[in-house]
Order: sequence, then structure tokens, then C-alpha cells
Amino acid sequence: MDSIVLVGLVAGALTTSSCIPQAARIIRTKSAKDVSALFFGLMAAGMSLWLVYGLARSDVAIVLWNAISLAFCILILILKRVYG
Amino acid sequence: MDSIVLVGLVAGALTTSSCIPQAARIIRTKSAKDVSALFFGLMAAGMSLWLVYGLARSDVAIVLWNAISLAFCILILILKRVYG
Repeated sequence: MDSIVLVGLVAGALTTSSCIPQAARIIRTKSAKDVSALFFGLMAAGMSLWLVYGLARSDVAIVLWNAISLAFCILILILKRVYG
Repeated sequence: MDSIVLVGLVAGALTTSSCIPQAARIIRTKSAKDVSALFFGLMAAGMSLWLVYGLARSDVAIVLWNAISLAFCILILILKRVYG
């Protein structure tokens, strides 16, 4: 595998997995007061466009990670809605 | 300008600017209790690698936005440290 694609895959693994502790924290504490809904809303909108960008450039790393990150952003938005 | 580069620039503008309301919220409420430091730590590590990836692929959109986002992540980590 091209080593640069590998860097992209590791980069994406880090940025995507970062959402897990945030979602876990909200579920554990049942509080999302300090989390900005606008943050995750803009993030979700941006990631949808990164997905389009990655597809257009046939960039596997960008498509893969942004699709998963988008799902996490939507989950966190739902948690924010539930726990406020 | 290539329309796909434009999509990448708009995508990045959205994901990068998303950090502004989160930072603003912490500064306004002086509280970052519900914000996960691990979230922004992993995000910063991942964005550093995206920067390497973008430089290696000469991808302007990826380099530009990840550099700015990385600065925002570090700012939010400092705010988390200050306000807890």
C-alpha cells in the first residue's frame, strides 16, 4: 500500500475515533450542556461535503473516515438533543 | 478553479469554523466539563497527520483547513485545561 494512503488511513482513524470518548462521556454523565450543537452541526455539514470531495477524487482515506465520522457526529447531535 | 477543489474548500471551511462556536461556548459559560479532552487530543493528533497527508499529496484544501483546525483544537484543549 502507498505509504501516503497509510498516513491518511491512520490520520482518519485518529480523527474518527476521537468522537468515541466524546459520545461515551455524554452517555456516562448524561450531560451535554457544555457541548455546542452548532459545533457538531457544522462538522456534520462539512463532513458530508468532504465525502463528496473524496468520492470525486477517488480518495479512499477521505471517503472511508468521513462517512464514519459523519455517523458519529449525528449520534452526538442526537445525544445532545436527548441530554441537553 | 477546479470545482472539486472548491467543494474541498467549502467542506473545510465548515468543519474548521465548527470549532468557533465550541470555543466561544466554553469562554462564555466558563465551563468545559462535558467536553472530552480525549476527543480534542485525538482530533489534534489526527489533524497533524492529515496535514502530512495533504502536504504529500499537494492537496491545498486538506493542508489549509487542517492547519487552521489544528490551531483551534489546541485552543480548545487549553480552554478545557483552564475551565475544566
